[in-house]
This record gives sequence, C-alpha cells and structure tokens, in this order.
Amino acid sequence: MKKDLDELMTRDQVDAMWVTGALFNNPDMVYFTGVRHVTWADLFKPRGQAPVLYYYSEMEREEAARSGLETRSYEQARPLDVLLAETGGDLAAALAARVSGTLKDLGLATARIALSGRVAFDSTLALLEKVRELLPEAHFITFYRDGLIQRARMTKDKDEASSIREIGRVTTQVVARVADYLISRPVQGETLLKENGEVLRVRDVKARIRLWLAEEGADNPEETIFSIGRDAGIPHNAGSPRDTITLGQPIIFDLFPCQAGGGYFYDITRTWCLGYAPPDVQQLYDDVISVHQAAIANLRAGELFRDSQELACRLFAEKGHATILEYSSAVEGYVHSLGHGVGLDVHENPFCGISSTPNDRLLPGVVFTIEPGLYYPSKKMGVRIEDTIYLNPDGQFEVLAPYPYDLILPVKTT
Amino acid sequence: MKKDLDELMTRDQVDAMWVTGALFNNPDMVYFTGVRHVTWADLFKPRGQAPVLYYYSEMEREEAARSGLETRSYEQARPLDVLLAETGGDLAAALAARVSGTLKDLGLATARIALSGRVAFDSTLALLEKVRELLPEAHFITFYRDGLIQRARMTKDKDEASSIREIGRVTTQVVARVADYLISRPVQGETLLKENGEVLRVRDVKARIRLWLAEEGADNPEETIFSIGRDAGIPHNAGSPRDTITLGQPIIFDLFPCQAGGGYFYDITRTWCLGYAPPDVQQLYDDVISVHQAAIANLRAGELFRDSQELACRLFAEKGHATILEYSSAVEGYVHSLGHGVGLDVHENPFCGISSTPNDRLLPGVVFTIEPGLYYPSKKMGVRIEDTIYLNPDGQFEVLAPYPYDLILPVKTT
Repeated sequence: MKKDLDELMTRDQVDAMWVTGALFNNPDMVYFTGVRHVTWADLFKPRGQAPVLYYYSEMEREEAARSGLETRSYEQARPLDVLLAETGGDLAAALAARVSGTLKDLGLATARIALSGRVAFDSTLALLEKVRELLPEAHFITFYRDGLIQRARMTKDKDEASSIREIGRVTTQVVARVADYLISRPVQGETLLKENGEVLRVRDVKARIRLWLAEEGADNPEETIFSIGRDAGIPHNAGSPRDTITLGQPIIFDLFPCQAGGGYFYDITRTWCLGYAPPDVQQLYDDVISVHQAAIANLRAGELFRDSQELACRLFAEKGHATILEYSSAVEGYVHSLGHGVGLDVHENPFCGISSTPNDRLLPGVVFTIEPGLYYPSKKMGVRIEDTIYLNPDGQFEVLAPYPYDLILPVKTT
Repeated sequence: MKKDLDELMTRDQVDAMWVTGALFNNPDMVYFTGVRHVTWADLFKPRGQAPVLYYYSEMEREEAARSGLETRSYEQARPLDVLLAETGGDLAAALAARVSGTLKDLGLATARIALSGRVAFDSTLALLEKVRELLPEAHFITFYRDGLIQRARMTKDKDEASSIREIGRVTTQVVARVADYLISRPVQGETLLKENGEVLRVRDVKARIRLWLAEEGADNPEETIFSIGRDAGIPHNAGSPRDTITLGQPIIFDLFPCQAGGGYFYDITRTWCLGYAPPDVQQLYDDVISVHQAAIANLRAGELFRDSQELACRLFAEKGHATILEYSSAVEGYVHSLGHGVGLDVHENPFCGISSTPNDRLLPGVVFTIEPGLYYPSKKMGVRIEDTIYLNPDGQFEVLAPYPYDLILPVKTT
C-alpha cells in the first residue's frame, strides 16, 4: 500500500522515487495522481516526504492540479528557452539540466533514486544518461519487476479495492449482456444468427463488447479474448474475427477492461457452450472448476502465491493432465500459471509462476486472479475459469465481482 | 518510411534495432507488427535484414504469427526453467541470458544496437544493465526523441496514409454527430438540455463521444478536450465534467482517437459557438482562421516545419497578440506551437516548437497538424482550429479528413 512506501524505501536504501511520463496509461504515475489529462510530468517523492509533481507544459497546469498533489511548473522555474540557449539548442541536454537542477533543489544531488514510468525507453534512457553526467554523485537504482512502487501497489488500500470492485461490477455486467445476447440469437442449424438474419461472427460480438464497455466508461486497452473451439485451445488466442458461433463448442471469454484512461483493471474468464456441451468438454470443465474451487478454498493469508500454483499442478496431474511444472513450454494440458496480481496493470505482482519470488505472497490487501485452465488444441477445445480475488481487511478471500460459473448457456430460440 | 530504415541505420552507424514490449499500444513495435494481442516480445532488425520477432509466451504464438513477420519462440530456443536453474532463480539474469544469447545467435554480440519500445522503464533498464554485463563489447545507442524508428515513422507510406485517412473519416464522422446532437437539443433560457429535460453537461457529451468512437472501433487513449468558456482559454484543459453548455460561449472540441489497440491517430479541433458568437469571440476566431489558412497556403515541401511556426507568430503578433516566440511561458495570446506530426503517436516528429531540430522538415509523406489558437483565460475565451495534413506523393499538402470550419452552430430548437 501507499502507506508502506517510506518503509520499503528505507529497507532498500532508496532516498527518492522519480516517476516520469503521462498522468494516464502510466501505472506508477497514476498510482499517485489518478488519471489526469497531463501528457508529461515528473513526480519526485523523497523518503518521508509528500510527492511533488513538476509538469512540463503551462497548458496543463489545471489538469496537473487536479491530481491533488503539490504541483510546480518546470517552465516557470526553469524556462525551456533559457535552457536551450544555454545548451546550444540540445533538447535532451536542456531537459537534463532542468531535471538535475530540480533534483539539486530537492536536496537529492547525491541521493539514491529509483526511476520508473511507462515511457518511450530510448528517450528516457538518453535523458537519464545526461542527468547522470550532471549529477555524478547521484545513484540511479533499477529493479526488475519488483520495484518499490510495484511492491507497494501489490497490496491495495480500501479506495483501491473499491475501484477494482466497481470496474468488476461493470465487467460482470458486460459479461451478462454478452450471455443474454448470445442466448437470444436465432439459430440456423447449429449456427447463431444476427438480428438481420446474417451469420453472427466473433467480430460482431467483440464490437458489442466494445460498445457496452464504452457505455460504462471503461477502456479495453489489452483486447478481449473470445475464442472458440480450436482457438480456445490456445490460452492467449484472442479469437478469429470471422469465426462463426455454433452450438456445443467451447467458448473462452476472457474480459479485462480498466477504468478510462488507465485506471484499475478487473479480470474474469468464463467458458461457455451454447445449447449443450459434448462429454469431453464437460469433463474438461469439471476438472477445471474443481481445481478452481480447491485453489480458492486452500488460499491462506501470508503464504507464497506459488503454493497455489503447485497445488493446481498436483491436482491437474492427479486427473491425468500434463502440467507446466514438468515441462515449461508445454502446449497441451495445464500450460500457464494459476494467476497474477491485478491493479493498475492487468498483470502485476504477485506472480505464482516459475519466475515468482519470495515477495509474491498473499499479504493483506492483495488482489489477484485464480484462473486454472486446460487446453487441448489438437482436440479443438480449451476451458478456463477465472475470478479476481481480494484478501480483505477481515482476512477473508473474497471474489470482488461474483458471476455464475455455468458451462452450458441454454439457447432460447432453437 | 520503413524503406528508409536501413539507410538511416547506416548513416548513424547502427547495426541493429531492438524493439521490446507488447504488440499493442507500443508505437515502435506496432510499426513493424501491426496491432496484435501479444503482451511481450523482442523484435530484432539487423541492418539490411528483415526483422525477426521473438515472443515470450507459447500461448501467444498464433497472435505473434499474425504479424506476418518471421517469428521465433524464446521458450523453445531457451526454456525459462533451464535459464532460471542456471541463474539461481534470478529472473532478470535469466531473461538477460536469453536476450544476450539471442543477440549472439544473430551475430550482434559486438554490434551497435538501438533499443526502443514503450515499456516499464525500470524493468527494461534493469534488464539492459544485465545484458551489458553479458555482452561487454556490444554498444547500446540512445536517442532523444529523434530515434531511427521515429525518424522513419515521420514520413508515411501509402498504407499508413490510408490508415490515417480512415481514422480521420471516423473522427470527423463523430465530430459531425456531436454537432448534430448539440444543435438538436432543447434550450431553456440559454442552456442546452438532455432528452429527459435535465441540463446537458460536458460529461454527457463526452460519454456520447466515447460511445460513438467505440461504435466505429476506435480507441481514445488520450482523452478528449471539450472545454467551454474560461476552460477553453487553457489549451490542454480537457473541460470540466459538470459544466453546462450555454449559447454564445466558445467551445473548443479537440478529438484525437486512434485505431483500436494503439494504431494510427487522427487529430482535429473545431471551435464552436451555439446560436451566436459574441463579437470578441468572433474577432478571435477571424484571427485564428486567417492564420490557419495562411499557414496552410505557405507550406513548402522540404522546408523546416519551424518556418510555419515563425510565420504564425509573426501573423499573430501583427494582429496584436502576444506569442510564445517572445516569452516561452506565455499563458495569454498564442501560447503553443503550430503543430506536430501524427502517426502511431498523436504527437510525433516533426515538431515545430522551440525544441524542433533540423530533422523536423516537411518531407514527402509527412503527416502533421496545423493548429493555430488564441487563448485569453482572463476574458473566458479561447479559439483553436486544427486539421491533420499529408504531403502526398503528388507533392500536394492535403487535409486528410476535411470538415467545415463554421464557428456558429445555429441551434434548431430555440
């Protein structure tokens, strides 16, 4: 949580955070500012002090102020025309002079500073290299995935949990609308039709999903998975736009929208068969739902998230499925990890796959998915069931936006 | 253009491009792959050779293949479990071993390599530092804003121009729907109402814009500016959600959506007064439209884009307005630059402000905005008019999606 940041900084001997980039679609920045229409700013948070936001453009002063943070104008403090005159028109040098001067003002010229932000890598590195020249005694610290802000973000405070619950409500509402839409289609033979009598295709369903999310003010930056039959056998296959929708075929529907502008995400998957389920799909579903239930029932606060993955692998293996535990590039059976943290990124700490670390624990406030799945592309089928779960202040693991698990959606109009 | 990349690489003595990150919302990557549902990959393009895409997850193999590029599986070539065993479970070290091994395979162990991608800065830098340790003779080159891919992207080939034209068509269609919606509202006193008789607010208009963009399959990752009166006096004020809409007040409507998933952008601004325009707003509009026309009429292929900015400043100064040319942090008068390139980023090369460089020229294929504006927050008004322009293969400067310039939208139902 945000309140843990100073302690994390102390533990890792970091004197200040420097977060750079836009105030939207930039998780580490949005964590402090919320989503605001500011295209470029630097946030500095010295240890033990409140963050200060330096915005680049005077035009964005009011949007910056909406962050509620203390804001300062780079342009007023160090006008770009003056800096460019001093650096012979070298923009990177001018901006580096601005940043390094600001770090000096903040007493951070010899500090240990952790830099983050979702940004254009080359420009930011070019800038950092020039700042390093100007502040040779400063130390810029790097972290791989386990940065201080990522670790703080791993556990959510009440407001964050509310935000995720709210986008969860929107998400499950759209899932319900898709189900309602599918079951009320006319059917010709075994194929679903649109209102106008044409064949319904995956792209038509996705267009409606986009629209329904937009109606609720949600963004969908990472696509939607709506994959059928053989495509469902490949976990991240987003679905073939021209595919038709027929009875009895497994559909994996994985929806992970976020609050507009790059706010909090929700993540849910259901597997559906319209009308009826063939026995082998039903069996696959039974195996997956039993692991889903067992994984949730066995969650323990404070434990390694990886333990859940090991449990899932053991249970799937007992049912005769190959698992990623034995073979990390497996493509049939249980081929991915059981879940991931969810927040301002759709995939964030904690992780439970082979790359997880001792930091990836189910600490109070953690929000994460449980999403066992089985995949048999050779048999043209796959099943995945996913919920987003919160370890709440009462110590309970809670599905933030419950939704029915039914495999078979009875078709009304056959 | 893409075909210029090898020449640009030769000129800057760069042996290979390394683009990292997702195949969506990641301009340098999408430039090569199109928008695909692949969350993580590395693209390597050695000079004089076709790019090769290494994807991280087996689950995304088919989405990766949809890029049309040669694709290779990191997991098959260098399984992560083996690498993790070799590095004692250090994920960053394991991934660095994978990348450096791949660079060796490609004959790039001592090469000059330019790394780009819109990514989490801290993780990518942490990875790069470990790759540097493993490949001490490789040189990693940085560019500030003028990277090789950015320079190639500055001029568009026919397919890219078509994409921008198409999203321009969608954008102007939504602008027209907004205009139609506004002029058909009931009016009480001077205030516009919704269908249900409630007062119409900025947030209601924005909700419709979101919906109409979604209907057309467009994304809107950087918000919309719909700002009224005093807010219109501040160029990047996105508008106050609760503001009502009244006759005679200037509305700045700046819309810049992109193709779903982070494809090509379009950018347009119109300033409207509903019903009538007060004389001072009309005067401001006349000044802006005359500079807009003059700036377009004076465009010359091959010239510095900065010349257009100087012309605009001169013309505005002649009309008695303060300009950013005299005072870089001005907040009244003409306070920003005349335009910017448009492509896979809404703001990209060429630039024409004080930070522009000799690279920022109007070369054949360039797509850019012309957007003069005047801002008087103290007088509660602002006006901006913007089009996106293409220097086409016939050597003509062409507005890609024309739309009427009218200031006054006559209200039907008063």
